[in-house]
Amino acid sequence: MNKKTDFADLEVGYDIPAVPGMDEADIQTPCLILDLDALERNITMMGEYAKAHGMRHRSHGKMHKSVDVQMLQQRLGGAVGVCCQKVSEAEAFARGGIRDILVSNEVRDPVKIDRLARLPKLGSQITVCVDDLANVAELSAAAQKHGTALECLVEIDCGARRCGVMTVEAATEIAKAIDAAPALKFSGIQAYQGAMQHLETYEDRSAKLDVAITLVSDVVAALDAAGLKPEIVSGGGTGSYRFESNSGVYNELQCGSYAFMDADYGRIRDMHGKRIDEVEWENALFILTSVMSNAKLGQAVCDAGLKVQSLDSGLPVVHGRSDVKYINASDEHGVIEDPDGVLRINEKLKLIPGHCDPTCNLHDWYVGVRNGKVEVVWPVSARGKAY
Amino acid sequence: MNKKTDFADLEVGYDIPAVPGMDEADIQTPCLILDLDALERNITMMGEYAKAHGMRHRSHGKMHKSVDVQMLQQRLGGAVGVCCQKVSEAEAFARGGIRDILVSNEVRDPVKIDRLARLPKLGSQITVCVDDLANVAELSAAAQKHGTALECLVEIDCGARRCGVMTVEAATEIAKAIDAAPALKFSGIQAYQGAMQHLETYEDRSAKLDVAITLVSDVVAALDAAGLKPEIVSGGGTGSYRFESNSGVYNELQCGSYAFMDADYGRIRDMHGKRIDEVEWENALFILTSVMSNAKLGQAVCDAGLKVQSLDSGLPVVHGRSDVKYINASDEHGVIEDPDGVLRINEKLKLIPGHCDPTCNLHDWYVGVRNGKVEVVWPVSARGKAY
Repeated sequence: MNKKTDFADLEVGYDIPAVPGMDEADIQTPCLILDLDALERNITMMGEYAKAHGMRHRSHGKMHKSVDVQMLQQRLGGAVGVCCQKVSEAEAFARGGIRDILVSNEVRDPVKIDRLARLPKLGSQITVCVDDLANVAELSAAAQKHGTALECLVEIDCGARRCGVMTVEAATEIAKAIDAAPALKFSGIQAYQGAMQHLETYEDRSAKLDVAITLVSDVVAALDAAGLKPEIVSGGGTGSYRFESNSGVYNELQCGSYAFMDADYGRIRDMHGKRIDEVEWENALFILTSVMSNAKLGQAVCDAGLKVQSLDSGLPVVHGRSDVKYINASDEHGVIEDPDGVLRINEKLKLIPGHCDPTCNLHDWYVGVRNGKVEVVWPVSARGKAY
Repeated sequence: MNKKTDFADLEVGYDIPAVPGMDEADIQTPCLILDLDALERNITMMGEYAKAHGMRHRSHGKMHKSVDVQMLQQRLGGAVGVCCQKVSEAEAFARGGIRDILVSNEVRDPVKIDRLARLPKLGSQITVCVDDLANVAELSAAAQKHGTALECLVEIDCGARRCGVMTVEAATEIAKAIDAAPALKFSGIQAYQGAMQHLETYEDRSAKLDVAITLVSDVVAALDAAGLKPEIVSGGGTGSYRFESNSGVYNELQCGSYAFMDADYGRIRDMHGKRIDEVEWENALFILTSVMSNAKLGQAVCDAGLKVQSLDSGLPVVHGRSDVKYINASDEHGVIEDPDGVLRINEKLKLIPGHCDPTCNLHDWYVGVRNGKVEVVWPVSARGKAY
């Protein structure tokens, strides 16, 4: 894998779209490519931001699902560990050598609780969220059974209307139960406001987060009064991290998308009304695609359809091209509007996906490129790890 | 893998959601499950239909991406082979022992053409579609280089407005070129009307297909006159196969979704106005999901979000339940409307996905169940094979 290989000399059957050392032009499409320079700049910048604001940064691995990207975030960006949403993701990160893992979600299935309680045996510190008193006893019993310890955050619902408690009283009651339970440690609060991350204006996002910050402050005050000062108050995403950093109550960020970016996040605005993909984070993730037909007047067909991207947050944007536009996707094809008929067969385009998280989850590999060459091919370590 | 295993006795780290022999109740969610009885009935019924109508059936592997499901379609349903859309899918099916493979799509990239031309060496007959004269010479050169032979279908655009030629003249010209090219065989016509499969009424679908059938008939007549009678006239999907079967011009069907079904196909109507999931094909594919939170009044949260299903054709439907409804998805969560508060933590629900093809492509495994037990765990052999 480390020497330059001519794809045409390989035997039948390829499970990877590229090998390190090959020219960018020889990558088999469609696949995910990472602009390594842009990725490193994003990661470094977030690390510097967090440090300058006295925040810990726990990078969200649900976005990239990659041990290699996470390692880079820890090495270059000073990330303290990873957060993820599923036990199977935590397993992939623990097996990959990540030593501080937060499952920023509830775990309720008895087998999953059992799996989670075993994970510290691999040498990783495991933290999990709780929003129900009954869950405390389940987690405690499993950790005791395996002779391990689990740290717990009480999850506060900040407006996403999914999991999490909604009152100071419920949060305090659960924190007390965790503190009293054998083999569990009460470590703090999970308060991620997911529903507002993608609102376009800074003011709209700020207003939504003000409500969350008020609730979180009240919970922290009540816990403090009960002798349960939270060590960790964790939350914040690419659309909100400045608010949490300046809240005076959060001390840990959970940004994920900033590292790769996507078309949907690119459209949101900073406090000066500027698009954040122009003034803050660079697009580092692309779907590389090839034109496979230009037989129809005014359009071309490329090889990137529904099966290589999630369209939940809109269509992809063709990077660096204003003359052509991705207008429709079917399972294996994308239709590109090409009014001037400029696209040629096998011409490559870089698509900025609408939504990075579920798009990455469709792929087995990240092809990392720099200066026109493939430098690394990283597995999407936790791809498909949903259970 | 063949004896009953207690999940709780396994060591840390699971890469599969179930093992054969376990109770259905112990399957780790979210994952895909197949009702094997329903699947076998669908496959058998399609086989009987094709036979009774004098049609060959080439089952579409782009839907299931599974060597095991394809083998069942050949054994129980008399399928003559598989069709798929990507060279990497063809590689997976060839390596899995499928001996008759149609890539029902164009292949234009030089490396992909090279890979395709090697595949007959694995013992599989390979057929590919062509819609551009320039592609004929490329395919011929690659097959000659590898000492293999490729069969070619000329693709007609029947209204999907993607690939395929649109005139009798263009089709005839390409067929002649294929016939004259060394190492290529002209085998017939690919004419799949993808854009109409999901129209709800039988009449709307019929009208769309009438246009296609007229064009295909004209092409067949012209080829016949030129001494190039097409052996194969292939097309037809789950929403249209009755039209192709009765056209007098098609002789091969390419149905895929009929085997698993999905919510979108379930809503289309037969000639009597009946939903086809009530009178024709059974739902055999489900996303098994668990309730993980019911803390909010009137709703529950389940563990199946965007990363285990494609929402391009709408939200999933909760199978067999009229009291609860899946109303929203985020990356890892699904919100279930539960007005009467009936859902309990860890309760399992079976979701009928909106669109089977891109949903299957998100998963590593099919868990096949019968009589409450896991009978098989099949890999999604060509999952992620997009290049």
